[in-house]
Amino acid sequence: MRDLTLIGIGTGNPDHLTLAGARAINGADLILVPRKGADKADLADLRRQILAGVLTNPATRVVEFDLPRRDTANPDYHAGVVDWHDAIAGAWAVAAASAPDAERVALLVWGDPSLYDSSLRIAARLVPAPRLRVIPGITAIAALCAAHAIPLNDVGAPFVVTTGRCLRERGFPPGCDTCVVMLDGETSFARLPPQGLTIWWGAYLGMDTQILEHGPLAQAGPRIVAARAAARRRHGWIMDIYLLRRTSQRVA
Amino acid sequence: MRDLTLIGIGTGNPDHLTLAGARAINGADLILVPRKGADKADLADLRRQILAGVLTNPATRVVEFDLPRRDTANPDYHAGVVDWHDAIAGAWAVAAASAPDAERVALLVWGDPSLYDSSLRIAARLVPAPRLRVIPGITAIAALCAAHAIPLNDVGAPFVVTTGRCLRERGFPPGCDTCVVMLDGETSFARLPPQGLTIWWGAYLGMDTQILEHGPLAQAGPRIVAARAAARRRHGWIMDIYLLRRTSQRVA
Ligand SMILES: C[S@@+](CC[C@H](N)C(=O)[O-])C[C@H]1O[C@@H](n2cnc3c(N)ncnc32)[C@H](O)[C@@H]1O
Ligand SMILES: C[S@@+](CC[C@H](N)C(=O)[O-])C[C@H]1O[C@@H](n2cnc3c(N)ncnc32)[C@H](O)[C@@H]1O
Repeated sequence: MRDLTLIGIGTGNPDHLTLAGARAINGADLILVPRKGADKADLADLRRQILAGVLTNPATRVVEFDLPRRDTANPDYHAGVVDWHDAIAGAWAVAAASAPDAERVALLVWGDPSLYDSSLRIAARLVPAPRLRVIPGITAIAALCAAHAIPLNDVGAPFVVTTGRCLRERGFPPGCDTCVVMLDGETSFARLPPQGLTIWWGAYLGMDTQILEHGPLAQAGPRIVAARAAARRRHGWIMDIYLLRRTSQRVA
Repeated sequence: MRDLTLIGIGTGNPDHLTLAGARAINGADLILVPRKGADKADLADLRRQILAGVLTNPATRVVEFDLPRRDTANPDYHAGVVDWHDAIAGAWAVAAASAPDAERVALLVWGDPSLYDSSLRIAARLVPAPRLRVIPGITAIAALCAAHAIPLNDVGAPFVVTTGRCLRERGFPPGCDTCVVMLDGETSFARLPPQGLTIWWGAYLGMDTQILEHGPLAQAGPRIVAARAAARRRHGWIMDIYLLRRTSQRVA
């Protein structure tokens, strides 16, 4: 593995792949596709679909490998994540070794490789270090705003991107009227005082199963909690994101 | 104009167009391309290059129009912007009227249409309101992180995206260790106490003229100020963005 390319593939719509992403796929000797076993949320199918759509180079090999599982029993969360990333780096190396002559290896990374994704940190563990290249991708944030046809920020104003856990622990971020929340398995918006807040929510963005909801948090919040629980039951998994905006003190 | 599609085209590399963007270009009856007169920063050339690369539908017409200028003499900044957006909506309508049978109109929007861009607010002024569709694009934020091959956020941690003006007026945002600064014509990072901050900077991202710099703010800051001034002189314009991270108190 002389070169490693992390290719951002967007967050569900195969057409959110960029021309650069398609080019990098066809420029690779080997593409590694992670599998999470029976987990429907592993999205290996979407990666296969993307490859079926754009891979035309007959010399490019595709190898699937089983993604190691994180030891959720480890009481030290951070240490558990470090071990897990070590294990994934090992799994990449083993999978790449199945095609020992492959110099240019590529991985399809969900969304954009820089945003709440571990691939860069895992790649930093590889020895010897490959030459690293990143192809940016459409983020879930851009997909959410596009689906709702809304601006992310107020004119000239800052915004915060945070996680469900941080929102629960710290509340609505200070000094900002707009906050995007990712990685939230607990509909943490429901714990905020809803006055003056509007929510734009999306699940399975870019997929056939996409769901959108929006409105004043007081009214839309309970609707989203119910829709999320029903969708999660139906599909067995869910991936969602939302934008919260203080609308009371907003300049038109 | 029955439908209006805002197509995110990325921030300089024509290959950052998505497959969905290419499809939307070919699905349009009419594509409007803004021109800013002699201003080299109007990037009309890049739009023409993108169209030359992907537009294959002979029925799609391309119309260029002159973008109205903002009245910088207006002492009320916000009122000036509102007037300017009204004028741009008018210019879109006039340009679209040059092809009165065109029902599906498209605009190529720099980066992602939701991020520090006015197209959605301008579109909201059109009467009658067209059906609006947004195709997400690669942001300058993703392009910056990809070029440096760095993660945007620390693991599980929030980040702020802000403007040069806000950074000058409010300092480094509270409650966060990572801050991305856009729309900064004044190298506002130079006014921060540099201790404990690292900067990753990029100009003309995705273009042949791309420049990157990074390092501890105390050392890299003056280098960037000089590189930016020289590049601006050479090219006559500049577009840049940077990420600041508190590295002192960081978890490895
Ligand atoms: C591990 S992060 C990866 C983010 C990804 N790198 C990106 O650029 O969007 C996963 C989180 O992204 C959001 N997300 C990703 N894909 C999504 C989708 N299709 N619909 C809704 N949310 C999504 C959710 O908040 C989810 O918890
Ligand atoms: C009006 S905003 C538009 C942002 C765009 N919609 C996006 O998604 O990135 C323009 C700002 O974006 C950043 N930017 C856009 N393109 C850039 C590029 N190619 N290189 C560096 N910065 C860029 C700069 O901070 C610039 O001041």
